[in-house]
Amino acid sequence: MNGNSAATEQVATEQQAREQALVEQVVASFETATDPRLKQLMQALTRHLHAFLCAVRLTEEEWQAAIGFLTAAGHITDDKRQEFILLSDVLGASMQTIAINNEAYANATEATVLGPFFVEGSPEIPLGGDLSGGAAGQPCWVEGTVTDTDGTPMAGARIEVWEADEDGFYDVQYDDDRMAARGHLFTDEAGTYRFWAITPTPYPIPHDGPVGALLDAVGRSPMRASHLHFDVRAEGKRTLITHIFVRGDELLTRDAVFGVKDSLVHDFVQHPAGTPTPDGRDLGARSWAGVRFDVVLAPAHTATGTGIPSADRSL
Amino acid sequence: MNGNSAATEQVATEQQAREQALVEQVVASFETATDPRLKQLMQALTRHLHAFLCAVRLTEEEWQAAIGFLTAAGHITDDKRQEFILLSDVLGASMQTIAINNEAYANATEATVLGPFFVEGSPEIPLGGDLSGGAAGQPCWVEGTVTDTDGTPMAGARIEVWEADEDGFYDVQYDDDRMAARGHLFTDEAGTYRFWAITPTPYPIPHDGPVGALLDAVGRSPMRASHLHFDVRAEGKRTLITHIFVRGDELLTRDAVFGVKDSLVHDFVQHPAGTPTPDGRDLGARSWAGVRFDVVLAPAHTATGTGIPSADRSL
Repeated sequence: MNGNSAATEQVATEQQAREQALVEQVVASFETATDPRLKQLMQALTRHLHAFLCAVRLTEEEWQAAIGFLTAAGHITDDKRQEFILLSDVLGASMQTIAINNEAYANATEATVLGPFFVEGSPEIPLGGDLSGGAAGQPCWVEGTVTDTDGTPMAGARIEVWEADEDGFYDVQYDDDRMAARGHLFTDEAGTYRFWAITPTPYPIPHDGPVGALLDAVGRSPMRASHLHFDVRAEGKRTLITHIFVRGDELLTRDAVFGVKDSLVHDFVQHPAGTPTPDGRDLGARSWAGVRFDVVLAPAHTATGTGIPSADRSL
Repeated sequence: MNGNSAATEQVATEQQAREQALVEQVVASFETATDPRLKQLMQALTRHLHAFLCAVRLTEEEWQAAIGFLTAAGHITDDKRQEFILLSDVLGASMQTIAINNEAYANATEATVLGPFFVEGSPEIPLGGDLSGGAAGQPCWVEGTVTDTDGTPMAGARIEVWEADEDGFYDVQYDDDRMAARGHLFTDEAGTYRFWAITPTPYPIPHDGPVGALLDAVGRSPMRASHLHFDVRAEGKRTLITHIFVRGDELLTRDAVFGVKDSLVHDFVQHPAGTPTPDGRDLGARSWAGVRFDVVLAPAHTATGTGIPSADRSL
């Protein structure tokens, strides 16, 4: 704003009118869309985008920087690296999309990001089996129940689990063909499950590109809080794609992709070497951890979502 | 929303709380930014982006489509093609940024997009000279004044003009080293100017990429309304980067990049072959057009902008 107050007011009115007229012109340009949902999306995008530009009074230099950022993100993106998903992740847009598509329902367990490391064809393990497949890490006993929101046990529910090893790498990130630290099993008649895995450890999202530079510029960490991935399915229930997190992990409050929900933070109880294990397994001189995760599934009709990938690490 | 009305209300409240909590968490993550402007931009971007996602209840499939669109835009973008600028253009974001940075001031002439075809080193032409440089097109006489907002003539104002030829191509789009249909001149002591150019014709923005597919999907035209580019500068005045458009052009109301302002639409008066020209030039059997464009420059302190490129056509 310039000039004296009377002139300023006049300018402001005319300026606002011009800016608003442009918004309406762009919105109207999408009236020709025959797909009503596409029309709705583009018109809403226009209004929110312009509201942002006008609210912050974006400078031309900042506009140039935004174009440069998107260009760099496009150029680093390939079959194995997805910088736009990373961008969506660090802006919380991935988590918000998941929240929108997994609406709160009674006491149903909350969803979180799928991540890029789910792969088909994991081995089936028996109840009480070990899915570590030789992956390095502290043995971790995981047990719990799967019920519906009324507390009815879900027998035969399918539980798929995957995780990084103690070096922060998933099996598919190694050059060999190993399959490790992933597997699936089914609940028993009482809806209970149990298995051996490894205690999860933290790792960074890829931060050598424009998204990493953005995190750096705003003083944010690229680290993800330690987590164990779950995909739980039962007939007539909403598929749950989620993680459990380790209580006490200092990264819980600054997970790079905002995947943490309080309800998903669990006690991974540490047991010194020699402590008897739940199934009598002899771990020799090794310590172990134990965690309980009781899963509550919402009815299937409450869901539209099936999980979106998150580029929490490139393959 | 699901279930009966009482349950629905409860769900809605909890759901809204979760979505809002996520927004606040992402906003808070930028508190560590030491650059206050960057913090402001990222926090505002977060709020507007999440407001969009929540308002439209973006599906996971739509999120995937958006990631795919940005990825394709990134991959088609190179030194000569800038799909992200095109995207900004067709969403009106480029024009809004220009509007924000060229605030309305009294009767100052409105700004519009720079476009990607401005190049340094255009030839200087004398008052009344011809800047077509052999470019094909109908001869067009352009004349007017440059004044400040009080009506004081601006002597020695620099006027740069560039345009496409009648085939819709700028000189730099040809493989040879031609320089044509561009030039600069200076106003005389009375602040007046005059020159020969060619009558502008319409052309499409590049529409063989994702932005073109978007325009197609929503039934929008990729065409730009016919226009003549101006860059007008005078000591102590805000630089004006604008176009003039041809009254009667059917594309005025659906310019692909929203560059048209009513105040920039001018009468290009058609004169049949044989009509005397303003400067006595003999055009033989050719018709010609004439247009008047009186430029009003705002004071320099009213501006922060210097013009952003618009990819209205790749080089």
